[in-house]
Amino acid sequence: MAHSAKKAVIDLRSRVEVALRDFLSNEAKYLHGIGDELTPAMSALTSFLLDSGKRLRPLFAAVGYFGAGGNDDDGVLRAVASLELLQACALIHDDLMDASDTRRGKPSIHKQFEALHGDGGWHGSPEDFGRAASVLLGDLALVWSSQMLHRSGIPHSVMSNVLRISDEMRVELMSGQYLDVYEQTRDTHDLARSLKIARYKSGKYTIERPLHFGAALSGAPLDSDIFATYSAFGLPLGEAFQLRDDLLGVFGDPAATGKPAGDDLREGKHTALIAIAVERLTGSDKATFSQLFGNEQLDSNGIEQLRSLIVATGADQEIEQMIETLTSNARTALGDGKIAPTALSLFEELATSATRRSV
Amino acid sequence: MAHSAKKAVIDLRSRVEVALRDFLSNEAKYLHGIGDELTPAMSALTSFLLDSGKRLRPLFAAVGYFGAGGNDDDGVLRAVASLELLQACALIHDDLMDASDTRRGKPSIHKQFEALHGDGGWHGSPEDFGRAASVLLGDLALVWSSQMLHRSGIPHSVMSNVLRISDEMRVELMSGQYLDVYEQTRDTHDLARSLKIARYKSGKYTIERPLHFGAALSGAPLDSDIFATYSAFGLPLGEAFQLRDDLLGVFGDPAATGKPAGDDLREGKHTALIAIAVERLTGSDKATFSQLFGNEQLDSNGIEQLRSLIVATGADQEIEQMIETLTSNARTALGDGKIAPTALSLFEELATSATRRSV
Repeated sequence: MAHSAKKAVIDLRSRVEVALRDFLSNEAKYLHGIGDELTPAMSALTSFLLDSGKRLRPLFAAVGYFGAGGNDDDGVLRAVASLELLQACALIHDDLMDASDTRRGKPSIHKQFEALHGDGGWHGSPEDFGRAASVLLGDLALVWSSQMLHRSGIPHSVMSNVLRISDEMRVELMSGQYLDVYEQTRDTHDLARSLKIARYKSGKYTIERPLHFGAALSGAPLDSDIFATYSAFGLPLGEAFQLRDDLLGVFGDPAATGKPAGDDLREGKHTALIAIAVERLTGSDKATFSQLFGNEQLDSNGIEQLRSLIVATGADQEIEQMIETLTSNARTALGDGKIAPTALSLFEELATSATRRSV
Repeated sequence: MAHSAKKAVIDLRSRVEVALRDFLSNEAKYLHGIGDELTPAMSALTSFLLDSGKRLRPLFAAVGYFGAGGNDDDGVLRAVASLELLQACALIHDDLMDASDTRRGKPSIHKQFEALHGDGGWHGSPEDFGRAASVLLGDLALVWSSQMLHRSGIPHSVMSNVLRISDEMRVELMSGQYLDVYEQTRDTHDLARSLKIARYKSGKYTIERPLHFGAALSGAPLDSDIFATYSAFGLPLGEAFQLRDDLLGVFGDPAATGKPAGDDLREGKHTALIAIAVERLTGSDKATFSQLFGNEQLDSNGIEQLRSLIVATGADQEIEQMIETLTSNARTALGDGKIAPTALSLFEELATSATRRSV
């Protein structure tokens, strides 16, 4: 059962890839018609979208569709794949806002266009051009996400509810991003605030809303029980997903994450992990931590030092425990009998890969 | 007739304002529910949207709807008002990309949030925070634009064609913006390239597509003649609109434009006006021009000097002539008998205000 669920998820992922590839190849023709100047924009977005990515949101949406009783359908696969374009917008703009130089082991979009400008010896500032291009490529990905959904071929009768969920999901995403950016301007760390951000950025955006999106695609009325079940499953699992992300941002292997080691430490990111650690640190340890945390020039020794301080407080174990509890709460929600039994193993499979991952 | 058309446009504009105000006040409650941290974002966007703005795209869309035979309808007014939120995204991101400090006589969004950060003595860089906030506020405006359209209450039967036009309009907008940003990296000026940008940024985005949007709202099938008529009217008028913008960017009165005098000169913006002037300048005039143009520190003397050089080439008169011809071509298209006769005076009124403006 577990084996066949894993295979089913892999199959769904390849069908999402195919849908994205088809959409992008169509758009490439359209942009080419506007002008060859757009070729670098098209190539950068195509490679950003197709070279890698876990496709988590499309997968949760597809599984949400099956769990609500939907039958296999290519239009639905195209509709859920559109969520990957929304995620591309979020990542491209996120890297710009955080001034992150790399994404998935490659230069981030603003860095790619900065290099294009610099290498070409173009007029003006390479940095400004990189920034402007990444604003526009993120915008284009967001616009495409709508377009791919509208063109997916799903029935008109379900579109209006799907759009309602999709709109709320997008407002929550942008709001969650703002909360996160704002949090980084605070002088203090706070576990409750960090968990709230985790709820908006991941609980809702990454898992709950994609599941709702899938349920709406199946034609389930917005007041049906399945939406509450998906919230009860999705919110804790999404928080667990974000907490795993926080751990990877500090302890993750660069070869797997595609991000430099200890990136969140260098960036001084306020996360639940850091909030717990800071609360527990005292005396000279606290002073050392404050001095090193958020230092952009931090070398591998500094990163090791910060990691040891965090581990000494037990904050990482506390977070692992929270992930365990949240995931277990999520699994409990699967047992309420609302989800189509044939789809349950897919939910189990995704719950595992979202919280026990190294990427 | 002209008088009553002017009044009808003013009435439409106030109804667009009311629709925007209602939408925003509803969204304010929603964001407040997420967290008080979002209050500055909500206020900034509300004031950006309601304090001023010509509402050109909603007006062209409304007029396009009436011209295609549509009857007065509040849902349609809400649908066309949603284009103002798309425009807010374009302007907020544009100011960020151009590093423009003011918009409509007030600090631009990134400057407002930079000041919020600086005045509050927050942690981190005020400039980075301003930049990040403006990325997200632009994204939010874009997302809201879809949401306002979806919730407008227009019939399901027309929504799918409306979305098709709206999606193309957005892709063209982002592509046109990219062409514009890319153009500013070129070492040379070129009239054909500048006119192409004018076509995408204004011909299509500001006028042709809003008219098409209105025609689709009326239920006209996408292959009906009215779409071709609107292109024949909208594309030249939109180019004329952009050329007027180019003149205002160099010669406009700051009190009316809300932008510093000669902003495009300081920014070194490649426009059709500059392309013609540069082509005609020779000898020491050309050298002086190259030296001053695009100098961010340019004072009022420098601006006067550049203006005189441009005027001496006759480029401004050439652009006025082009505006005249394009507007006249646009008006000719109004006579093909496809547009509802009762709406014709509205088209005349908007054509005049788009091309003879000082704002």
